[in-house]
Amino acid sequence: MADPAFTALDPLADSVELTRALCDIPSVSGDERTVADAIEEFLRGSAHLEVVRHGNSVVARTRLGRERRVVIAGHIDTVPINDNVPSRLIPADVSDEGIEMLWGRGTVDMKGGVAVQLRLARDLVDPSADITWIWYDNEEVSAELNGLGVLAAAHPELVVGDFAILGEPSNSTIEGGCNGSVRIEVRTFGRRAHSARAWMGENAIHAIAPVLQRLAEFEPATVTVEGLDYREGLNAVGISGGVAGNVIPDECMVHINYRFAPNRSSEQAIAWLREYFDGFDVTVVDRSEGARPGLDAALAREFVAAVGTEPAPKYGWTDVARFSALGIPAVNFGPGDPSLAHADDERVSTAQIRECERSLRAWLSHDDG
Amino acid sequence: MADPAFTALDPLADSVELTRALCDIPSVSGDERTVADAIEEFLRGSAHLEVVRHGNSVVARTRLGRERRVVIAGHIDTVPINDNVPSRLIPADVSDEGIEMLWGRGTVDMKGGVAVQLRLARDLVDPSADITWIWYDNEEVSAELNGLGVLAAAHPELVVGDFAILGEPSNSTIEGGCNGSVRIEVRTFGRRAHSARAWMGENAIHAIAPVLQRLAEFEPATVTVEGLDYREGLNAVGISGGVAGNVIPDECMVHINYRFAPNRSSEQAIAWLREYFDGFDVTVVDRSEGARPGLDAALAREFVAAVGTEPAPKYGWTDVARFSALGIPAVNFGPGDPSLAHADDERVSTAQIRECERSLRAWLSHDDG
Repeated sequence: MADPAFTALDPLADSVELTRALCDIPSVSGDERTVADAIEEFLRGSAHLEVVRHGNSVVARTRLGRERRVVIAGHIDTVPINDNVPSRLIPADVSDEGIEMLWGRGTVDMKGGVAVQLRLARDLVDPSADITWIWYDNEEVSAELNGLGVLAAAHPELVVGDFAILGEPSNSTIEGGCNGSVRIEVRTFGRRAHSARAWMGENAIHAIAPVLQRLAEFEPATVTVEGLDYREGLNAVGISGGVAGNVIPDECMVHINYRFAPNRSSEQAIAWLREYFDGFDVTVVDRSEGARPGLDAALAREFVAAVGTEPAPKYGWTDVARFSALGIPAVNFGPGDPSLAHADDERVSTAQIRECERSLRAWLSHDDG
Repeated sequence: MADPAFTALDPLADSVELTRALCDIPSVSGDERTVADAIEEFLRGSAHLEVVRHGNSVVARTRLGRERRVVIAGHIDTVPINDNVPSRLIPADVSDEGIEMLWGRGTVDMKGGVAVQLRLARDLVDPSADITWIWYDNEEVSAELNGLGVLAAAHPELVVGDFAILGEPSNSTIEGGCNGSVRIEVRTFGRRAHSARAWMGENAIHAIAPVLQRLAEFEPATVTVEGLDYREGLNAVGISGGVAGNVIPDECMVHINYRFAPNRSSEQAIAWLREYFDGFDVTVVDRSEGARPGLDAALAREFVAAVGTEPAPKYGWTDVARFSALGIPAVNFGPGDPSLAHADDERVSTAQIRECERSLRAWLSHDDG
């Protein structure tokens, strides 16, 4: 057991202090118990919250009989640490950015978002909508371990609402929906021969030239879905082939990742891929549905108005797609630059953490006047 | 020490029996001592031969003061055994080919050729030309270990002659010269990015499409050199690239093998490759000079006439190129189908062994009447 004196979260800490404290409890996927304990402890004793623990996921919800319910969720695991824990606070006068930055694993993805949520969960005793807060484990690993998916399967009654906000890093602006993703392997086949007698064989690497040609020629579309522009992408992410330095190769494989706008299902995307690579052997290895931005939901429109900045599309795949599949419109909204997620120089502007907290607090307090 | 009773070669055995006996003394590259001992023993006591042992190579030569000297050579090592030793003689009535076949490692590459040479070395006490017989080790491994090269460097005075015959398998016909070979790596570079934001990167795999296109479009020339047609070949023998399933790759490499006719040097072949792949990063990883067929040498013309079949080009690289570099015109002439060399079902027609022996014996005895 870890030392409770070290892992306890100060009930009076602000969201930046909570971010630091959460980062300083290492919680690489599969090792979230200590941080889940600290979160549960932080919430117990708040009379307005019903707290449920499931594995290393924690759910806390209000039951105020409001007309509408918002789900606000975040994952508590991180990718592996690389000498970047404990976190370090770099003051504005010495930081490259000229503003105060918090460095360390999880600062962006996504202890900052979790900290904002924890602060608000305790503070908002009388919110404008009922709120279901969900903190879950195993987001950074394979889909079947995902804590949100596990929770929704075990306790579907806990994962319900009219709108969901996922605290993934989005520079504290609203990023709606996400692209879908399909991975395929395209193969060509040939016949081995000694390269001194190449005419007795058939070169599978040469045969894959038209596949690379089609990839190079592909012009990615920008697709507008509910007012947001999604940029698609079709890319080789791997290629392999060859037997030995003197053998005509009999097989070549290109591994391709297709990111498609959420106006299409993965089924439609796969049909398009089979058409685009017609004449070649295509194997689907992986698929994730996209999620429409969900910005036409009433609560979403109000939230967008409250935040006051233009919503943007989310390109990377996130668990908003999981909410979308459950019939809950969902957006990403959290502090941090998503391009710094998983980076060794992962860092977040503390001002963004505060800005994110302020926006959510204002919106969820609105009706209270 | 191996049992001498087992490893001794019968001085009266014919060339087929000698082939079997040689195959039954395993001599994978690096382990040729026993077979070299047996060869040396087999030759000692022949008054017409001066025998020199150098490492596991054996040289035996006549010093009859003939006007011309022929070098006849063969390597005594094999590629690794794969349950195909000892050799097995399959009679004509049960063999797939309908002729008597000798199966086993080395039957083709090239104990058959060595056996013919050993039989003739003992028998030809008064040949038409002086003969230098060379049996050498380590042909099947890296070039710097090659016993013929080692011998020529240590005892250049032993490796001289007007014409050379290398007993490599050639279906007992004359195969002249050999193609040269160059291996290069062609690389493209790009910039990594998350595949969800592909436009922030540059895809090195897509960038290699024109290289594969040029390979696919290449039409191999057939080049006539001293009357023999050499087929060239330009082939990808390997390709690799990719970082992870969600990363735009920043590097891709195609490994290419160019086989070129012996009218060009490797230097010229490399210059041509740099031109053909102009605009791409090209690294030379390996080069071997080709060898002109040498069929215009007087001895070669007589030998061709004596064998009586049309000479053919040799496509694979052999040590005739080493003789060629020493200024000695050289051809391949040995029993066995070269496409069965190194195969697990390696096997030779015993008739071819006898035919090869007969041709060489007739030619080298010719002037004796």
